[in-house]
Amino acid sequence: MTSFGFVPILCTDNDQDGLPKEHTPMIKMTTTWLLAALLMFVQLTASATAGETDFSGLKDKYEKDHPGKGKFSQYWEPIPIQKYWNPRNFYQPPTAVSGEVSRDQCVACHQSLTPGAFHAWENSTHAKLDAIRNLSNGQDARFYKKEKLAEIERNLVKQGVLKEGEPLKEVGCIDCHGKVGAQSIRHDKDLVMPDRTQCGSCHLQEFAEAESEKDQQWPQGQWGKGHPSHAVDWEANVETAIWAGMAEREIAQGCDMCHYQQNKCDGCHTRHSFSAAEARQPEACATCHNGVDHNEWENYTLSKHGTVYQTHKSTWNFDVPLKDALTKGGYTAPTCQYCHFEFNGEFSHNLVRKVRWGFNPTPAIADNLKHPWFEGRKENWNTTCAHCHSPSFARSYLEAADKGTLAGLKVEQEAKQVVEGLFRDGLLPGQKTNRPAPPAPEKDAPGGFFQLFWAKGNNPSHVERVHADMWEHDLIKLYKGLVHGNPGGFTYTEGWSELMRDYAVIMDENTRLREKSGNAPGAAAANPPAGKDDSNVRNVLGGLALLAGIAVLLYRRKH
Amino acid sequence: MTSFGFVPILCTDNDQDGLPKEHTPMIKMTTTWLLAALLMFVQLTASATAGETDFSGLKDKYEKDHPGKGKFSQYWEPIPIQKYWNPRNFYQPPTAVSGEVSRDQCVACHQSLTPGAFHAWENSTHAKLDAIRNLSNGQDARFYKKEKLAEIERNLVKQGVLKEGEPLKEVGCIDCHGKVGAQSIRHDKDLVMPDRTQCGSCHLQEFAEAESEKDQQWPQGQWGKGHPSHAVDWEANVETAIWAGMAEREIAQGCDMCHYQQNKCDGCHTRHSFSAAEARQPEACATCHNGVDHNEWENYTLSKHGTVYQTHKSTWNFDVPLKDALTKGGYTAPTCQYCHFEFNGEFSHNLVRKVRWGFNPTPAIADNLKHPWFEGRKENWNTTCAHCHSPSFARSYLEAADKGTLAGLKVEQEAKQVVEGLFRDGLLPGQKTNRPAPPAPEKDAPGGFFQLFWAKGNNPSHVERVHADMWEHDLIKLYKGLVHGNPGGFTYTEGWSELMRDYAVIMDENTRLREKSGNAPGAAAANPPAGKDDSNVRNVLGGLALLAGIAVLLYRRKH
Amino acid sequence: MTSFGFVPILCTDNDQDGLPKEHTPMIKMTTTWLLAALLMFVQLTASATAGETDFSGLKDKYEKDHPGKGKFSQYWEPIPIQKYWNPRNFYQPPTAVSGEVSRDQCVACHQSLTPGAFHAWENSTHAKLDAIRNLSNGQDARFYKKEKLAEIERNLVKQGVLKEGEPLKEVGCIDCHGKVGAQSIRHDKDLVMPDRTQCGSCHLQEFAEAESEKDQQWPQGQWGKGHPSHAVDWEANVETAIWAGMAEREIAQGCDMCHYQQNKCDGCHTRHSFSAAEARQPEACATCHNGVDHNEWENYTLSKHGTVYQTHKSTWNFDVPLKDALTKGGYTAPTCQYCHFEFNGEFSHNLVRKVRWGFNPTPAIADNLKHPWFEGRKENWNTTCAHCHSPSFARSYLEAADKGTLAGLKVEQEAKQVVEGLFRDGLLPGQKTNRPAPPAPEKDAPGGFFQLFWAKGNNPSHVERVHADMWEHDLIKLYKGLVHGNPGGFTYTEGWSELMRDYAVIMDENTRLREKSGNAPGAAAANPPAGKDDSNVRNVLGGLALLAGIAVLLYRRKH
Repeated sequence: MTSFGFVPILCTDNDQDGLPKEHTPMIKMTTTWLLAALLMFVQLTASATAGETDFSGLKDKYEKDHPGKGKFSQYWEPIPIQKYWNPRNFYQPPTAVSGEVSRDQCVACHQSLTPGAFHAWENSTHAKLDAIRNLSNGQDARFYKKEKLAEIERNLVKQGVLKEGEPLKEVGCIDCHGKVGAQSIRHDKDLVMPDRTQCGSCHLQEFAEAESEKDQQWPQGQWGKGHPSHAVDWEANVETAIWAGMAEREIAQGCDMCHYQQNKCDGCHTRHSFSAAEARQPEACATCHNGVDHNEWENYTLSKHGTVYQTHKSTWNFDVPLKDALTKGGYTAPTCQYCHFEFNGEFSHNLVRKVRWGFNPTPAIADNLKHPWFEGRKENWNTTCAHCHSPSFARSYLEAADKGTLAGLKVEQEAKQVVEGLFRDGLLPGQKTNRPAPPAPEKDAPGGFFQLFWAKGNNPSHVERVHADMWEHDLIKLYKGLVHGNPGGFTYTEGWSELMRDYAVIMDENTRLREKSGNAPGAAAANPPAGKDDSNVRNVLGGLALLAGIAVLLYRRKH
Repeated sequence: MTSFGFVPILCTDNDQDGLPKEHTPMIKMTTTWLLAALLMFVQLTASATAGETDFSGLKDKYEKDHPGKGKFSQYWEPIPIQKYWNPRNFYQPPTAVSGEVSRDQCVACHQSLTPGAFHAWENSTHAKLDAIRNLSNGQDARFYKKEKLAEIERNLVKQGVLKEGEPLKEVGCIDCHGKVGAQSIRHDKDLVMPDRTQCGSCHLQEFAEAESEKDQQWPQGQWGKGHPSHAVDWEANVETAIWAGMAEREIAQGCDMCHYQQNKCDGCHTRHSFSAAEARQPEACATCHNGVDHNEWENYTLSKHGTVYQTHKSTWNFDVPLKDALTKGGYTAPTCQYCHFEFNGEFSHNLVRKVRWGFNPTPAIADNLKHPWFEGRKENWNTTCAHCHSPSFARSYLEAADKGTLAGLKVEQEAKQVVEGLFRDGLLPGQKTNRPAPPAPEKDAPGGFFQLFWAKGNNPSHVERVHADMWEHDLIKLYKGLVHGNPGGFTYTEGWSELMRDYAVIMDENTRLREKSGNAPGAAAANPPAGKDDSNVRNVLGGLALLAGIAVLLYRRKH
Repeated sequence: MTSFGFVPILCTDNDQDGLPKEHTPMIKMTTTWLLAALLMFVQLTASATAGETDFSGLKDKYEKDHPGKGKFSQYWEPIPIQKYWNPRNFYQPPTAVSGEVSRDQCVACHQSLTPGAFHAWENSTHAKLDAIRNLSNGQDARFYKKEKLAEIERNLVKQGVLKEGEPLKEVGCIDCHGKVGAQSIRHDKDLVMPDRTQCGSCHLQEFAEAESEKDQQWPQGQWGKGHPSHAVDWEANVETAIWAGMAEREIAQGCDMCHYQQNKCDGCHTRHSFSAAEARQPEACATCHNGVDHNEWENYTLSKHGTVYQTHKSTWNFDVPLKDALTKGGYTAPTCQYCHFEFNGEFSHNLVRKVRWGFNPTPAIADNLKHPWFEGRKENWNTTCAHCHSPSFARSYLEAADKGTLAGLKVEQEAKQVVEGLFRDGLLPGQKTNRPAPPAPEKDAPGGFFQLFWAKGNNPSHVERVHADMWEHDLIKLYKGLVHGNPGGFTYTEGWSELMRDYAVIMDENTRLREKSGNAPGAAAANPPAGKDDSNVRNVLGGLALLAGIAVLLYRRKH
């Protein structure tokens, strides 16, 4: 596998009750660990054979897997702009231009109509395939594209688009917005907004790699199959209850503006340049990977990695593939892409093979870090870091990042108990007099995800929102700051110090409300939630159960 | 008209009572719509003829229009640094250097005294006019400057500074800090800190374009004439009551550090390079257009437009004028300047001809979006976006941005009712015991603009400040995030999700204070402000009134 | 002295009681002013002779000065990653690789083991000394390095590493991770993680310059000797009570990730490029100098200085030494390094000779700004600014920055009185029922520094944390925004407007808690702390005392 720009872990949200997933009962875990071991084997096999996948099979699977409007489809209708975020389901050609238009007419007309799009394309590789085909100097950073082009032509021969030995002349408007190789289309009938399959018909290997993210399976069901990943980010979007329930569709579609990677490839390879070099630069990830609930961009930029990038990048060559970044590209620090595309020394568009904490730290992950699935992935990270750092440094740092994350999770969980206690006891302001339910299909819950995007009357109360900020913002920023090496970020600017502040707000309110109600103040808070410290015991038991399970499996096979 | 660097909408603040402008009575609207239609015609005519304006007339008008210390002049005195922000009114030459100094002495002395300023100038076009004059290659990106130089020489001939056919040798210290073409000045008497007129004596076209922003007139008086624009930003500054009333003049002058574009040109063309190429880059706008109350810089940077800029800019040519940006400049995404200098395919220093929501969304704008003035400008935006996007995309996106902004405004207005209700009922903490009035000329009001910059005792109460944050920060960030395509920005990091949080804080407090006072909790909140949903009716009525008005006008003319 | 990249004032924290230092009694001040005058003389002499320091003496002093685990060593144990932040005390070679390894084996093995580190080194000056030695063109920006190399060779001759006339061949792995000039080391016994002395054995001048920061002494003991500076930042770290007391060591080590400049040089000259050009760019400072408690990076970036840097930097040459930045480097605006390395026209690694407000504004500084120590440094700043600006501009701006800072301090101090009043009166929520003490060696105090990093039960209460934010975040951001010329930053986004918000929160709570307790509301707040307005009187008295002291001293000398 080789490399082609861009970035990591994608936001999926939470289960329907609006809360982060929690402790799973032991029985279920043992079973899932066993399954996990098997799945790891399956996954390794699957990804190794991705290169041989045939296009039509992959396309069929992609289309079958696609959720369309999702399980909450009855609750929402698309607004016009959404046809661009999910063209597969919502796009219809405009009726303004009717009749048949030829390959050349497309270009000629759009040169004057949309000159920005035209000139971006005109200067792109798509418009100058011969420049690649004629490269003779192996030292040219783009030389690897010559073989890539030959591979694409072989794909098109298999699909019957090209004859054996026939070169692909260019990739123009019509090839993507109609059909590869088409000479004309009916503008008001056949016009297409490309999705992953259109790009994949040529870029089959990258399509297969990207789709293989769907094979991701968590050992204790912490996330659903394939989550979190770019490959299912649209699914994550439309199956989030508050997203589907919100009346303000123009706000909700803001989520789509990032959660469309499952649908399209231009999130990283911006139209109409479709540049690999662009997609290899950290800024290509920034539009989506920034902000309160996953500040990767800010953390990277302010880390040593990021400042080395910024001070040296004018001497780095982003035309070289990621595998040659250190040797020929002159990188002296990693980009987002370098670490997140890498897996055991190879680079691909499957970015989730080293995911451990995923999008947000939860007890269900924290309690299972000793499980082989998590340990194995930590080992893979050590390998990545050791491209530049000593293994001892890598291990020490990753250990500190894990323990720092656990420390933050503990604070957040204590606050959660306090807020849920107030809710249970009916003590939140207005809880009994002015607490409307969130819009269906969302359901009410204290400190739920929906409270970040919806408010009415006294729902949420202030402290619930503060708790929602703790788990969805502060804790994630702590973790993201730790793993991306932004010291001020995780220590005081965002992360730990914000957790402290929000904890203080919640404890103040708890004391106040309980004093008012005559209830003992801070009872819940004085004792951290029981069962937090038995995670090691459970890990050992889980490990034994896994071994027992494998033994049983092997025994049965033989008999 | 052609192009020369920099950026958009300028902050003006609020009317004297410290609150955003609100619903205007119907009668007034009808009249103003009529006036608007006429003014649109006048404006179009005016801007078309700007190129022919003579310098002395323009200079006279500029000086006559200048507010100096403004209507609140009795309340404040300038501190020393302010002589640089408004040299016209406050600058006096230093007395340290006396006597006559020659053109060459200026340069020689400042080469050693202020080498930074000298070297910046030395490498600038001002110091090397011959390099421009001698350009023979039409392909040189700076070739357009050759005609620009000839045009400037023609201006100077008209002003009697040059003889017919006499070339301008250089632009040195003395030309701007004394008088164009002067050979010597008395340093302690004649030294000048240049304002718009000094630059305008050569750069007449740009001066005229920039001054034409003052013709901006809103159809329902949502903003005063010329507001918001760079051309009146000093006026907006000195006529803001809290700015004039604050005792802390060193803090207040922080506003001047951006609100001086009406006074000087080096806000974008930084002295002493005065580079057009600099002013064409988005960073040139960043010093002023960032932060809590107008985060354009952050939104652009994190948008797709901004990340394409960042990953591709090393191949873009900022020496080409904006009109050639897509064709010869290699731009594959817009800069701030590309969209905000453009109007109907031409580029000029009048940046306000497409302004619609202006600086902050208010009901007075929201209720009139169907008015032809707003609809026409939306159409102009569609044209701009369609330089790269399909008209269908442009329209869909702009519609979503409008509706998303309206959704935020509704939340803010509901919170406003709640806070004003608490104030009206005298329930805010300390309202009756410890609420000093703000300094004159400012007047007390709940949630007023002044509460962002002044606090004493229990003025403002916490929830008033939270409401001030909602309308001046959250809502603006929502709107700016939407129109600049920063999805995380408007959805969760800033904007919508912050509005939800602040709303929750206000509702908590409302319930608490009303429970304490024995008042029914949340009465105001349960019902959104009446009259919000009749805006369409009013628009239709307004449209009819406009037509009627025009009919009457035509009828009277004939008779 | 010459120049070699990077940045300014370093965070040290607070005295043990967790509060910013306050008014010092008069007697003490008079004495300290006298001492200060003497010390200024000593310092000037000391820094002038730094260039002649011999290496072994400097190394001995460095090692003797080093605090190791510091005075709170009994309270904490290092975690594994800390061996990299403070190798001097905690590093042990890994036992995985045993036996003797040669100079060439180091390189060969790490080329495949850690290719990122290898290639960074391979392209560095360290690996290509001959390229420097063979420079013959004095116009090459790196030409100054030729003399630098000769100087280093002279240092090594003195240390007996090189023979007279023997050239240094290369600087490879072994020279820094073993000993300069070594041919082999035992990997499991001799391997070293370099500290300041390893770098200093070659780069003696820079080492001496950097160490001279320890001579910094404040006239009224506002900060301890050498503080705040890079040269004692590790000491500041380990002697902060809450840092030592925190149970969460993985969070605490986040502080180390910046507070290690006392230990190592790669904070700015990132391994394994060790590039001076990198360290001269503002981004090199960004990892540490950003965020809520010292947002220098944000302020610089958004200032005019920063936007000029961003729009012009592709034409600036960072290979030239700082002293040639304006003339040969093409800088048209200052970098962090240009202003903070400069002192009276010369550039060195001592960055604290112009420090005045230091890390955070306190009354002990505010009340003494008229003292010659502070006045002298202000004059030094005027000199710096006047490299580009007129002295009149420089003075006006610096005066505004001082007064703006004083205005913010006054607001913060008023809020402090209110919060301390609530604490004194036992009125804070849960203060009598649920207020655990912070972990030893930290001690409880209202609004203390520790409350930014630790919380349990009702310690801190919400308003204490808000006050901690005011003095450690808002006030510092106000000051840093002012001095770095970021108008929106200090006026409304961060700084002043945040101070207003936090003040309002505290006053609300004060009114509420005192009403509840039957105590008169806002009594403390209505009157600003006594003694704030007599600072000028005290300054005059202090000045007289200083003169008297000097007179006494001279009199005694003679007799």
